[in-house]
Order: sequence, then C-alpha cells, then structure tokens
Amino acid sequence: MTKHIVTAFDTDLRDLLLELAQMAGWAERSVELAVDALMTGARDEAERVIADDDRVDEADRKIESDAVLLIARRQPMGDDLRVIVSSMRVSQDLERVGDLAKNIAKRALIIDGTIQQRTLAHGVDSLSRLVLGQLKRSIEAFVERDTAKAEDVWRHDAEIDALYTSLFRELLTYMMEDPRNISSCTHLLFCAKNLERIGDHATNIAERAIYTRTGEMMAVNRPKQDELGTAVSEPNRPN
Amino acid sequence: MTKHIVTAFDTDLRDLLLELAQMAGWAERSVELAVDALMTGARDEAERVIADDDRVDEADRKIESDAVLLIARRQPMGDDLRVIVSSMRVSQDLERVGDLAKNIAKRALIIDGTIQQRTLAHGVDSLSRLVLGQLKRSIEAFVERDTAKAEDVWRHDAEIDALYTSLFRELLTYMMEDPRNISSCTHLLFCAKNLERIGDHATNIAERAIYTRTGEMMAVNRPKQDELGTAVSEPNRPN
Repeated sequence: MTKHIVTAFDTDLRDLLLELAQMAGWAERSVELAVDALMTGARDEAERVIADDDRVDEADRKIESDAVLLIARRQPMGDDLRVIVSSMRVSQDLERVGDLAKNIAKRALIIDGTIQQRTLAHGVDSLSRLVLGQLKRSIEAFVERDTAKAEDVWRHDAEIDALYTSLFRELLTYMMEDPRNISSCTHLLFCAKNLERIGDHATNIAERAIYTRTGEMMAVNRPKQDELGTAVSEPNRPN
Repeated sequence: MTKHIVTAFDTDLRDLLLELAQMAGWAERSVELAVDALMTGARDEAERVIADDDRVDEADRKIESDAVLLIARRQPMGDDLRVIVSSMRVSQDLERVGDLAKNIAKRALIIDGTIQQRTLAHGVDSLSRLVLGQLKRSIEAFVERDTAKAEDVWRHDAEIDALYTSLFRELLTYMMEDPRNISSCTHLLFCAKNLERIGDHATNIAERAIYTRTGEMMAVNRPKQDELGTAVSEPNRPN
C-alpha cells in the first residue's frame, strides 16, 4: 500500500468518527430536552424531540452506508476494520438512545400537568444528569480511543443502577400511597427505566472503545444491581 | 475472481447465516421459557434462562468476529457485503432479545407466588405467542431472503402493539383497584413492555431482510400505536 492510500483511508475514517460524534450530540440533546420537557411540562420541547428523532435515525443509516462504502473501497484489515465495524455498533446504540429519548418525550406530553407530578419527577432529573455525563464521556472515549476514560464510564454504571433502584422504590411508594398517582408514576417508572437503559448504551459504547484499542471485549457480566435485586421484590418473595 | 473463491465465500456466508439461525433459536427458546416461568412459577426455568443468556451473548460476539474475518478474507462488495453487515445488525437485535428474556425471567422469580398474579399474567402469555411467531418468521425471512414473509412480519407488528396497549390498560386497572397488586403488576407491565420490544426487534430483522434484497430500507416511521396513544393518558390529559 502506498502512503497516499493510507492517508485517504485515515481521512475517511476521521469523517466517519466525526459523523458519529455529531450523531451522539443530537442524541444527547434529545435526552436533555426530553427530560427538561418532563420537568417543566414544555410541550414544544417534547414535540421537538419527537420530530428530531428522524434525524438521528437518518444519521444511523448514513453511518452504516458510509462504513460499508469505506470497507468496500479501502478494504481495511485488522484494527482498522474493527474500528469501522464498531462504529456501526455504536451508531446502533445511539439510534436506540434517540428512541428512548423520544419515548420520554411522548410520556412528558401525557403526564404534563400537576405540580405534584413535577415533584415526583425530580429523581428522574438527577438520574438524567448522571446518564448524560456517562453518554458524553463514552463517545469521547470511543472517538479519541481513550481507554482510561472508557474504563471510568464502565465503572460508574453502578451509580446509575443504584439511583434508578432507589427511584423505582420511591415511585412505587407514591403509587401505593395514592392510587391517583398510579398512571403518572407508571409513566415516570418507564422514563426512569429508559434513562437506565441509556446508561447501559453508554457502557456498551465504552466497551467498544476498549475493544477497538485492545481487541478484547470486556467481561461478559459486569456487576448489575437494579430494581430486580432485593429492592421492591421483598414484599412478594415467596420465602 | 475464480469460481473457487466465489464458492468459498458462499460457504462462509452460509455458515454465518446458520450461526445466526442457531442464535435465533436460542433467543426464541429463552423468551418461551421465561414466559412459561412467569405463568407457572417454575423457578428452575427462570434460572435456566438467566444462565443461558451468556450463550446468546457469546454467539453475538462470535458472529461479529466471523463477519469481520469474512470481510477481511474475501473482501466482498455490493450485496454480499450488505448481507454480512446486516447479519451483525440482526445478531445485535437477537442479543437484545436474549437480554429482554433474561429480564422477564428475573421478574418471574420475583413475582412468583399467588394464583392471582398468574391470572393477571394470562395477557402476557397471549402477547408472547404473537411475539414469538413474529420473531421466528422474521429470522426465516432474513436467512431465506424471503421478502414476502418479511413484509408480512412488518405488517403484523400493529397487532402486537394493540394487544400490548390493551394489556397495559388492564394492568393499570388492577393496580388502581387494589394497591396490593401494584408491585406485581409493575413487574408484569415491564414484562409486557419487554415483549413489545422483542416484537420491535422482529420488525427490525424483517426490515433487514427486505434491505438485503432490495438495497432499500423501509420507510422511517411505520404506524405505531402503543400505550402512549389515547389509552391510559386520558385521565391525566391537561385539556
């Protein structure tokens, strides 16, 4: 291979990673706006998130098609091929993040209303801050191939799980106290679950960052502690 | 290219699709067992699903690594490259199906107990039958490149959404009637949501089957009618 071809490949790969970073920015912004809509009841923000999801989906398709073109044209091997394939995986994770944000936005439109619901939503807001931080750092780690940052994201997923679990218990308590809360709290439960899932996608992206550097996937099972642990299950445990 | 190389590629591709079909079989079996555990309270079945998820995850990693090897070795172009890339996407969908089945199994272990809960779970059982049929047909459509079957899957997703929505409403009613149902019904709500998501993954796989034949992705938005439509939201709508 000549120097020229290597350089052309590097340029193409940089373009692909830039597309991915831009897509990540859109997905992050959607999560931010969706949670804000949930907190403030701003219907225009929720509607914007719903409309913007097409752009994220379109970016996913473009990244896949550019990646396929890049493979066909430059026929990369080894590490280079692994980075391109991983970019498609990360793009699929981001596409799901966009979907989850859209789902939060739809629920924001439904539970919009009482101050009381806004109070209940504060836990969701804290959770979203943690999750957004993780998502941002995971993409940086992937694009900059920064394994230290990726490991940091990987370790911090436990904090999201802990906060999600406590929120899950809190929301259940509200539902038990007053049946009128059930409908709204159910939607907030799903919003919280969506945020916890976005955290999982950030962890997937971090694992990809490590994989593209080392060629090794992280251990299959990272310690998971969610609402299916000891939390809410106690009252119903058969023994 | 010589005849020999083309044939070797065809063999490799057939092997990759066989791996994918086998993985799909495992994922389907996990969904089936998880729902059965939910219905009958069979703890051993739930535990088996949880243990088996590693195998599905491992299959996903193997398919990706075999696909990368196949690309590097045979340097396929056009349609061939598109099928391989799509196989990785489908594998990622199936890996998520496995995760969702595992999540149902974990919830089966928690809500195991009263007959009453089993009664509530019947809707979940019907939903799972529909979803499993869709998943099976979507994989057949992808592996056999059968676009008619894929379109059939694509059209039937609306039935899953309708059944899920009615189940969502029913579960909410039970929660409102008796606060003692809240904890179990919340877990059933998440089980129902997981099944609806598995249906979405089947639709993704069907879309991939069409894409690998036609080179065209389906329309961005298929008509979606879930619990975020008019259903449960009515009581809380601000106007």
